[in-house]
Amino acid sequence: MEPLDSQVGFLLEADRLKTVLRQSTLTDRSRRENSAEHSWHLALMALVLAGHAPPGTDLARVMAMVVLHDLVEIDAGDLFAYAAPAEQARQEQAERAAADRLFALLPTAQAASLQELWEEFEERATAEAKFARALDRLQPMLINMVTEGGTWAAHGVTADQVLTRVALIEDGSPALGAYARAMVGSALDRGILAPSRGS
Amino acid sequence: MEPLDSQVGFLLEADRLKTVLRQSTLTDRSRRENSAEHSWHLALMALVLAGHAPPGTDLARVMAMVVLHDLVEIDAGDLFAYAAPAEQARQEQAERAAADRLFALLPTAQAASLQELWEEFEERATAEAKFARALDRLQPMLINMVTEGGTWAAHGVTADQVLTRVALIEDGSPALGAYARAMVGSALDRGILAPSRGS
Repeated sequence: MEPLDSQVGFLLEADRLKTVLRQSTLTDRSRRENSAEHSWHLALMALVLAGHAPPGTDLARVMAMVVLHDLVEIDAGDLFAYAAPAEQARQEQAERAAADRLFALLPTAQAASLQELWEEFEERATAEAKFARALDRLQPMLINMVTEGGTWAAHGVTADQVLTRVALIEDGSPALGAYARAMVGSALDRGILAPSRGS
Repeated sequence: MEPLDSQVGFLLEADRLKTVLRQSTLTDRSRRENSAEHSWHLALMALVLAGHAPPGTDLARVMAMVVLHDLVEIDAGDLFAYAAPAEQARQEQAERAAADRLFALLPTAQAASLQELWEEFEERATAEAKFARALDRLQPMLINMVTEGGTWAAHGVTADQVLTRVALIEDGSPALGAYARAMVGSALDRGILAPSRGS
């Protein structure tokens, strides 16, 4: 098969990400957000918030990672960020299998290099992966702030749980982490986020 | 206002692109595609089809352009690619006004640089803009090929009209242009595209 034929096959298969629904809604609350438009939102965030990445961060690699990072949900579906550890482990396994299937649709050398980028994102070891993951954590928080608590309210997520994710944002970008920490404070003040379970 | 506050304001306003519907459907034909997920699809195409861009093309700039290119539709809406010239002229004016309003939400220096990228895409003068526009033309063609003619069939678009767009794809990437030209031939053979009006 010609490289372009397999690349087009991959791109048409990727279209299915538009049908994978997340827990978050749009800011106008008209419907749930899908993982393809969420990925676009992260790419726009990478572009606009680039100045808050640590010096030397390769923004092209960040953009590539956020565009690719959710493709595995075509097979594995989206799991809510605050799901139980056992569910997270099952999800991780399903996503690895999905990555093996999906990237193999591409010409061999390209399959390897894009799957490596996806794994880099998952492993969160490089500056680029940490920044990309920070954006992925920050985006639903921004939506929750303008939708009266959004998924926090819908799923009874508490501030101490959210602050665990804020630590991951700080790890990718001190400036975005500080911004997220201030948002949690403001969400508590406004009563759209509960302090902790039972409180 | 702090830069981050205005950047977040811009990113939340951008969320509205998820509600702008295009004429194309998803490949599974379950619903119409929106401009945010379409933009994600183009970013993925830029990444996967990068090897078919002319040597020296700056892929990071291409990615940035495709992520930004449709934001103006938040105010101006999406116009079908085969709309009449008078409608196209009105649309162009509405999109310029939208760009002025939307990019002004950002800190001044960033507003200028991102609006310049948007204008570069519109003017189609650089290698990056030509490649980005080629992807924007190719994506709905790929969808039409797997949806029994899709928007071609729905709007009575004919092969001679499609070949006008194929010339623009060739201008951005000879390899993608040749691929698109072959697709038009195949669509004619399969009877999902009519040769010309009245034929």
